[in-house]
Amino acid sequence: MNERFLKACRREPVDCTPVWFMRQAGRYMAEYRALRAKYSILELCKTPELAAQVTLQPIDRFPLDAAIIFADILLPLEPMGIQLEFAEGEGPVIHNPIRDRAAVERLRLIDGGELDYVAEAIRHARRALNGRVPLIGFAGAPFTLASYAIEGGGSRNYLRTKQMMYADPTAWHKLMDKFARVITGYLRRQIKAGAQAIQLFDSWVGCLSAGDYLEYVVPHVQVIFDGLKREGVPMIHFGTGTTAILRHMREAGGDVIGIDWRVHLDEAWAMVGHDRAVQGNLDPLVLFAPLHEIERRVEDILRRAGGRAGHIFNLGHGILPSMPIDHVAATIDMVHKLSQR
Amino acid sequence: MNERFLKACRREPVDCTPVWFMRQAGRYMAEYRALRAKYSILELCKTPELAAQVTLQPIDRFPLDAAIIFADILLPLEPMGIQLEFAEGEGPVIHNPIRDRAAVERLRLIDGGELDYVAEAIRHARRALNGRVPLIGFAGAPFTLASYAIEGGGSRNYLRTKQMMYADPTAWHKLMDKFARVITGYLRRQIKAGAQAIQLFDSWVGCLSAGDYLEYVVPHVQVIFDGLKREGVPMIHFGTGTTAILRHMREAGGDVIGIDWRVHLDEAWAMVGHDRAVQGNLDPLVLFAPLHEIERRVEDILRRAGGRAGHIFNLGHGILPSMPIDHVAATIDMVHKLSQR
Repeated sequence: MNERFLKACRREPVDCTPVWFMRQAGRYMAEYRALRAKYSILELCKTPELAAQVTLQPIDRFPLDAAIIFADILLPLEPMGIQLEFAEGEGPVIHNPIRDRAAVERLRLIDGGELDYVAEAIRHARRALNGRVPLIGFAGAPFTLASYAIEGGGSRNYLRTKQMMYADPTAWHKLMDKFARVITGYLRRQIKAGAQAIQLFDSWVGCLSAGDYLEYVVPHVQVIFDGLKREGVPMIHFGTGTTAILRHMREAGGDVIGIDWRVHLDEAWAMVGHDRAVQGNLDPLVLFAPLHEIERRVEDILRRAGGRAGHIFNLGHGILPSMPIDHVAATIDMVHKLSQR
Repeated sequence: MNERFLKACRREPVDCTPVWFMRQAGRYMAEYRALRAKYSILELCKTPELAAQVTLQPIDRFPLDAAIIFADILLPLEPMGIQLEFAEGEGPVIHNPIRDRAAVERLRLIDGGELDYVAEAIRHARRALNGRVPLIGFAGAPFTLASYAIEGGGSRNYLRTKQMMYADPTAWHKLMDKFARVITGYLRRQIKAGAQAIQLFDSWVGCLSAGDYLEYVVPHVQVIFDGLKREGVPMIHFGTGTTAILRHMREAGGDVIGIDWRVHLDEAWAMVGHDRAVQGNLDPLVLFAPLHEIERRVEDILRRAGGRAGHIFNLGHGILPSMPIDHVAATIDMVHKLSQR
């Protein structure tokens, strides 16, 4: 097996820097669009054969160093009692958003068994990968799930989320605790099914102040990382807009800390501490640039990583549907070539 | 006159910390809503008597330490040739967004005279203020104006903005240069009309990497601050999501650097350097919290400012329409009482 990714997670030396991309299976690929013409996102997620097939699409096409199971961070909301819909072109819509303590109380504490279609997809994908590259499992982090559940979809200001956090901290912590317990069980099932690493996506946590992050989020994220430590797989802790809280993310947990594009990788790694691995940090929008501009930025990131063991190359956030597929391919090659030891 | 604000801008000692709020004239006030029932935003902006009246509404009601002229950062776009509309409840919509070099070339380099209704509003507001508190003038910074002009409104990913920046840097720099020259002239006219300080709003610049900020934005912001230095009024440089670029914002210019809520004020001030003043940095959403929670956070910010000369209290971004007006009032009082020397 290509061990580059797992070695880098453990800060072991590698022959060249491993690379994978968030949302590497997605609409920018014709293979994916062909499947989406026949199935909805939820149908793809809930049919293990199809989810495994989508997972392998980018692996069959590009020399990526890791696969990530095809799923959605919002899947756990449904069995917890939240009515979720993926409206075409609009992103997720929640029909019964959580707005008060009673709604928090009503949320079901599921054990993850209701999501066994994801575990099954992982088993399928592992078989299909047949040892080519490791498979990453993932889940949304409590804050990011809570913000979707409370706002009812995406948000600009996180108005209602912060309102609950500030005005009813008891309800807030109860909600976060429920998500933390559900996510821990869900990720454990993914690991048992064959996930060789996991990533926790706290995509929107960068909207918080450092003080609020410490007080309202960190304890719940710690529950997850502490709960999964003995499973023995590398754990990645990801967020965006996190320059001010990188130190606290490290405290919250994770063998690998995701770095978004806003901050220089060397400065970010110094903040995180060199006893952790880091993942990042190309601005995804750079994939729209001409190849020589992409190369200039890939070189800069690799230079800032400085050949230190423990760097996984990734975008600062996911690939967008309109991104040119040849630029995705070229970027992967650049990372491998420019980082050869 | 209440000189607290201007003294703090110059890092001179004050009796207590000055405070004003971005969007302190706005829909959270019944007086403002009453005027908006009769006039559109553009009508208010373009009628100097009304703009001055709105400017004074929060000053008449609260013991704020500065007024800011009522206007919109997008006003310069219209005379430059961009068709702008404030769609009710949707924010600004631009009907002919700038998508190519030809559109950049067509943009008119106005000298600011077309916006003399703002200068006239400043004269009216100065007379009406009659020396009670200083009056701040303002403008949008080149990046933030360019992002609106290119995207055609607000944006999540700044996809087209970054596409132009990366794919056609010549067009990008031409566009930024045009905005920088127009803004310099426009702000100079505001100062000549009586603005006693100015604030440059680079609200969305936090979407950029530190490297891109230095390369594609800083030179143009420097043109503005360098061009206005000899006018002798304090200049505030504001952005959000800027933790990774605070040092570069300082280099770009400004006597006062705006700090958003994500980063602790003491850490931010250390990054900016103590030879500059800072403004901030309460999360605006905290105004929805119970008063004891607001107080806890105001105390924390003042403690981190450490009694050092050169702190202006503000929110990290503007007041929202649904904010409780009594919490706005209480926060102003807390700042004054808790910071008494």
